[in-house]
Amino acid sequence: MVTAEELRSRRFFQGLDQAQLEAIAAITEEVEHDTGEVILQEGLPVQALHVLLQGGADLYYSTSADPHDQRMVCEIEPGEAFGISALIEPYALTGTVETTFPSRVLKINARALRALFEKEPRLGYLIMAKVAQTAMMRLHCARLKLAVTPAY
Amino acid sequence: MVTAEELRSRRFFQGLDQAQLEAIAAITEEVEHDTGEVILQEGLPVQALHVLLQGGADLYYSTSADPHDQRMVCEIEPGEAFGISALIEPYALTGTVETTFPSRVLKINARALRALFEKEPRLGYLIMAKVAQTAMMRLHCARLKLAVTPAY
Repeated sequence: MVTAEELRSRRFFQGLDQAQLEAIAAITEEVEHDTGEVILQEGLPVQALHVLLQGGADLYYSTSADPHDQRMVCEIEPGEAFGISALIEPYALTGTVETTFPSRVLKINARALRALFEKEPRLGYLIMAKVAQTAMMRLHCARLKLAVTPAY
Repeated sequence: MVTAEELRSRRFFQGLDQAQLEAIAAITEEVEHDTGEVILQEGLPVQALHVLLQGGADLYYSTSADPHDQRMVCEIEPGEAFGISALIEPYALTGTVETTFPSRVLKINARALRALFEKEPRLGYLIMAKVAQTAMMRLHCARLKLAVTPAY
């Protein structure tokens, strides 16, 4: 059972009030992963928004139709969300996430979260603003990779 | 003066009701640009969320510290938003936008829009969901460029 207190200190949840944290905690589970586990796989549907509590993970993007042709683009750090595609249509993963350390991860049920947003639109506003910010962080990572490769 | 009716048919505003469209129209102006005009410049602060009504524009990202070292990453099409950094902290432009045709563009006052979100969080939720989706489209563009460059 995850509590509001466990969410409060994480960067992703900054700005949420007690009632909002409790509502999210009620639809969240905590999962442990060993080093080298693939938590999310590009192309697959995604049912949960993830937040890294402890440990570390790398985000990979495929760079061709060959699923083995992957490139590491971002390091995910504690307090960050990943699997944000769970809240963005068409809800399909755009990257693969693999742990680089033993990790503790929050999994927030995305369907329940979206239902919560319909009832509590202010929560939806705050979380979607964080999701947009996370998407921009991913873009920043991808651009850094672009910057070190020659333009064709 | 922009009307709710002019917004209604644009993809970015799909799903908004009459009152929401009217509230946005009241803080929006329409601007015309010739071909080859730089509408937004990477690194500068941005005061408006833009939506392309008619025409076309290209989005460029710098690929090094040299501001002339830019690379075209996305074509922006009518109905699409750009300058989404106006709604994402720290509100600084991450790319440069230059028109490729004579264009008509909506400029939505970002400060007024964020104030509107505070009063009408459901509108904030809907718009930030679109903004997140737009950020993912930009990521998709950047990745396609990544895909044609060799991994180091």
